[in-house]
Amino acid sequence: MIRVGILGATGYTALELIKILLRHPDAQITAVTSRQEGRPPIAAVHPCLTGRLDLPLEDFAPAAVAERCDCIFSCLPHAASAESAKALLALGKRVIDFSADYRLNDPVSYRKWYEHDHPDAERLGKTVYGLPELFREQIPQAALVANPGCYPTSAILPLAPFLKEGWVESQDIIVDSKSGVSGAGRTPKLGTLYPECNESISAYSVGKHRHSPEIEQILGRVVPAQPQIIFTPHLVPMDRGILTVSYSKPTKSFTEEQALELLRDTYRNEPFVQVVKNLPATKDVAHTNFCHITPRVTGGRLLLISVIDNLIKGASGAAAQNFNLMYGFKETTALV
Amino acid sequence: MIRVGILGATGYTALELIKILLRHPDAQITAVTSRQEGRPPIAAVHPCLTGRLDLPLEDFAPAAVAERCDCIFSCLPHAASAESAKALLALGKRVIDFSADYRLNDPVSYRKWYEHDHPDAERLGKTVYGLPELFREQIPQAALVANPGCYPTSAILPLAPFLKEGWVESQDIIVDSKSGVSGAGRTPKLGTLYPECNESISAYSVGKHRHSPEIEQILGRVVPAQPQIIFTPHLVPMDRGILTVSYSKPTKSFTEEQALELLRDTYRNEPFVQVVKNLPATKDVAHTNFCHITPRVTGGRLLLISVIDNLIKGASGAAAQNFNLMYGFKETTALV
Amino acid sequence: MIRVGILGATGYTALELIKILLRHPDAQITAVTSRQEGRPPIAAVHPCLTGRLDLPLEDFAPAAVAERCDCIFSCLPHAASAESAKALLALGKRVIDFSADYRLNDPVSYRKWYEHDHPDAERLGKTVYGLPELFREQIPQAALVANPGCYPTSAILPLAPFLKEGWVESQDIIVDSKSGVSGAGRTPKLGTLYPECNESISAYSVGKHRHSPEIEQILGRVVPAQPQIIFTPHLVPMDRGILTVSYSKPTKSFTEEQALELLRDTYRNEPFVQVVKNLPATKDVAHTNFCHITPRVTGGRLLLISVIDNLIKGASGAAAQNFNLMYGFKETTALV
Amino acid sequence: MIRVGILGATGYTALELIKILLRHPDAQITAVTSRQEGRPPIAAVHPCLTGRLDLPLEDFAPAAVAERCDCIFSCLPHAASAESAKALLALGKRVIDFSADYRLNDPVSYRKWYEHDHPDAERLGKTVYGLPELFREQIPQAALVANPGCYPTSAILPLAPFLKEGWVESQDIIVDSKSGVSGAGRTPKLGTLYPECNESISAYSVGKHRHSPEIEQILGRVVPAQPQIIFTPHLVPMDRGILTVSYSKPTKSFTEEQALELLRDTYRNEPFVQVVKNLPATKDVAHTNFCHITPRVTGGRLLLISVIDNLIKGASGAAAQNFNLMYGFKETTALV
Repeated sequence: MIRVGILGATGYTALELIKILLRHPDAQITAVTSRQEGRPPIAAVHPCLTGRLDLPLEDFAPAAVAERCDCIFSCLPHAASAESAKALLALGKRVIDFSADYRLNDPVSYRKWYEHDHPDAERLGKTVYGLPELFREQIPQAALVANPGCYPTSAILPLAPFLKEGWVESQDIIVDSKSGVSGAGRTPKLGTLYPECNESISAYSVGKHRHSPEIEQILGRVVPAQPQIIFTPHLVPMDRGILTVSYSKPTKSFTEEQALELLRDTYRNEPFVQVVKNLPATKDVAHTNFCHITPRVTGGRLLLISVIDNLIKGASGAAAQNFNLMYGFKETTALV
Repeated sequence: MIRVGILGATGYTALELIKILLRHPDAQITAVTSRQEGRPPIAAVHPCLTGRLDLPLEDFAPAAVAERCDCIFSCLPHAASAESAKALLALGKRVIDFSADYRLNDPVSYRKWYEHDHPDAERLGKTVYGLPELFREQIPQAALVANPGCYPTSAILPLAPFLKEGWVESQDIIVDSKSGVSGAGRTPKLGTLYPECNESISAYSVGKHRHSPEIEQILGRVVPAQPQIIFTPHLVPMDRGILTVSYSKPTKSFTEEQALELLRDTYRNEPFVQVVKNLPATKDVAHTNFCHITPRVTGGRLLLISVIDNLIKGASGAAAQNFNLMYGFKETTALV
Repeated sequence: MIRVGILGATGYTALELIKILLRHPDAQITAVTSRQEGRPPIAAVHPCLTGRLDLPLEDFAPAAVAERCDCIFSCLPHAASAESAKALLALGKRVIDFSADYRLNDPVSYRKWYEHDHPDAERLGKTVYGLPELFREQIPQAALVANPGCYPTSAILPLAPFLKEGWVESQDIIVDSKSGVSGAGRTPKLGTLYPECNESISAYSVGKHRHSPEIEQILGRVVPAQPQIIFTPHLVPMDRGILTVSYSKPTKSFTEEQALELLRDTYRNEPFVQVVKNLPATKDVAHTNFCHITPRVTGGRLLLISVIDNLIKGASGAAAQNFNLMYGFKETTALV
Repeated sequence: MIRVGILGATGYTALELIKILLRHPDAQITAVTSRQEGRPPIAAVHPCLTGRLDLPLEDFAPAAVAERCDCIFSCLPHAASAESAKALLALGKRVIDFSADYRLNDPVSYRKWYEHDHPDAERLGKTVYGLPELFREQIPQAALVANPGCYPTSAILPLAPFLKEGWVESQDIIVDSKSGVSGAGRTPKLGTLYPECNESISAYSVGKHRHSPEIEQILGRVVPAQPQIIFTPHLVPMDRGILTVSYSKPTKSFTEEQALELLRDTYRNEPFVQVVKNLPATKDVAHTNFCHITPRVTGGRLLLISVIDNLIKGASGAAAQNFNLMYGFKETTALV
């Protein structure tokens, strides 16, 4: 039984993680932390956990958590997350980090996009990126896993095979993504107030979203030339789900059927990637760890349409998948 | 041309009011106020007003506003609203108050429900309640009109005729109301964050909502015995709309058709009350100043089902209706 | 391993059932039926099952299904369901019926509410009503279980303890329920078209809903006097969830705390009923088999506020719970 | 007073048109048609019109409608619409056609995309396309106006200035559009059932949507070279609104500010096009006839982000705008 701690347990990804781990036969949640008044029971913050998890929310203290946990999932914001991870790793613990702190290649790039110095700069670029479909072999032995971003997962999985094989150009790739509102977190803000984003769709952070360099750099680790993308995220009036349409330019002529075959060949043995012929809806993967992908060839472009649940395959499901790999459990445990 | 000022112009009711007044041939918006950094254009806060209203948001100063306005609509929170109204009335201005400050009968009751002393206690209970269907004759000459609450409008209109005529008991009335989220205002709060209230319905403030005494006291002004109600409000995942089911106990036997007739007789000449046979949906009145009402007689109870748009008939449309009456314009101007 | 068949597999309750059973270690889905052209794979109808269940949809033929299945869940409409159940029972199979066919007490009542003769009248009133919290001891040996209706589950669980103990009157009970749209099924109809019910709430079937007699008759089996209820269902713009407010009249004076205690005493050992102090939202139980209940005492009435997921505790989760009891598995298997 | 008839009056665009015309001082609705049993009042189909429009729905008979109407708006499906228009034009009436029947350049193209012969082929390509921002001078004298499609309006307005001036290439333009569900019409279909499209986003008709040739051909009328576009429409869980992101490739270097200036210069005098600096949301234009447009220059591409209300600027508002121009009324009458 692996004893598990969750830092930043009041948010949406932490809640999904708890629900997944409650179904895991070999994991036991032993600590949940949050900056809170007092030590309220977790069910006071997440009423859906009433009768399902009886733990108090506690302030995070590395030693206290390390004592009771083998593996810690950090759902803290960036910077705070790296600081916590650093402390826990020093205490010999394993960490799965939901923040973006360990995803980028180098401190300069991190500084540019996150606008502060990295609190644990030397680990940057050496940490495993926890997308098992691309980096599975590196995960079992890792002490620290950088859990992938939601948008990047939705864009990297469909694009990687075509870039790897050189079927599409690495430049002028457009990634047009649409996400549910839970991706914006649980801190009250005007922009995610119900009457603001209900019955409305908008693009945001155009040309400036921090997931652009993540998509480019991670793809750059597995394909011949680091690609350049234009990334347009949108906020959609729904709780969860990401649909990404990636537009890339073929370097040679191929058919839709051939594109399907390449995807199928690539992901044939992946438990959570389904290559489909139909145009997928985010609902097809809601509340699951699956990614559905389909290709279309039209107007001289390859379109790759992919859907995930941003809270599961885009966050907590992926984290559980990494956890399973790190501890040698069946990869799909608690996820199907 | 009546020059109009709007206090607290960044909220949802203020926005709806602005949209209505922009269609009004005899009103001109000359001041909009809000506690803000600097003097941003109103369209910076409400992008939908781009190219439609070119005014800066200014801090509220009674004299400055009084100089440029004949009639002021206050969309301020309670207490702040009465303080502002008091100052403006002293300067000879007319005021339509969206807050609850002037709706209750007396300062003791106000103190009990709003938990502070009333800033303008002597006007309490003497101010016109701006529900034209019940108090039309008092409105034209009023300097100050208390604009009705949204839930009270939805409950008072259907219940009043039956209580007036003594067809139902004044005790043990249950008012079960369901409201869209805009009713909770535009201040970011966890409870009205999109992922909290989307895909969810909940009851709130059961037995404690401040609109209970308002419904009871206002009905008490027009019916023989002040009624006693149990009021259960709910938050529904939609922007706007209130549906209220009022359960009351007949004092005598009557049919659904007779109930319909009483409603029709009462509201025959009302421009904004429609007595219908079908079960109404809030969508039937969305973005309008109408109230639809239908009765059902079943299981020994009279059920009255009524729908309004909480932001229009429940707030800004009613205010415009009052404005029309106060200045002698056709009551439906800018509202149909 | 119990071999399971699902009749009427294209609807929402069938889909939820499939998802639950895919997590069940001792159940294997061996047949899924539907009136369809050809034998399309189930994933063609439910794309979310891609890669998760590889079965063709077949026409229902009792013998063919009986040969491959031990237990059959019928998600067919009423009448069709009883006909199928009758045939399968005659072949020695066990049946869990989602329809209302076996819930009422007698054929006369059935005829009145369902407007046709019952196809298997002699079983009516003798069949186990599969609400384990009230009838657990009858379930293990049952060949046929009538799976409870969604609204009845949400109303019976909170009301039963108070009626049993005589704390509230059995007359003049008001049950005001609000349901998500999935409860209306998957057949395209104007009333459940997205733009019709989005951003709108409405009451429907007031005084005429078929779940009224079900609530009354089932409560009548466990309490001293069959209660009389007024039932008002509403359609709420969300996929799933039911919130029910039950208003009943105390026969004696008791406090909210005492009401809480009675509920806690009653449901202390129930794995899926949580008695809470907070006002529950349907989201607290979404995608789970839990029911949350809280009492309020106000205005001379007892209010019981309860929430369930209409597709899980109100349908497929309850069915799986019954399945577990029928076959001696742990009651919570595949449900937590 | 212009007497107006509306064909196909039961749909969403017809309803919006009725609401607009009810505010029009110089229009009177004198006939509403639909294939219906009997002659139900229009309010039986659209309850929101109760007390606002007292007309029966009648079967369409050209002579009977022509007798009572000066101008007819056809909200019929394609083919049926051209047949009706042809008959009414022959009777000397003016027609505004909401269908796609008169938008394309030639019968061959029409046949290819609509899969049947055009019922009034000779008018094809000669009919005025009712987008006043591009074709205003042709509208006043027109007997027949082809009202623009919703997606085309959202894409043509932002792209036209840049293509006209040669700032962007006419090839490899990507138009990624997201629409509310009302665009799919009011006929019950599985795909637009509430629980199917709620909480979900999906792309549809990728590479095959009939609005692609419309965008290309209409732009081809005003720019040097007919552009080639890749068009990806999406269905978004909201009632109304279209957000379009158009990705085009600059032919020369220019800044965001310069792009803004070109848009501002082009649309300075347009009452319904607002060039904005902020990223617009569909809510900014909901229930209005406005289009908001903003440019972004990033990653070697020009992005144009535009929003409209698909039912207003994308359909009924545009039709009223055309009506105003055809009859010499102020262009904004009933629209602001």
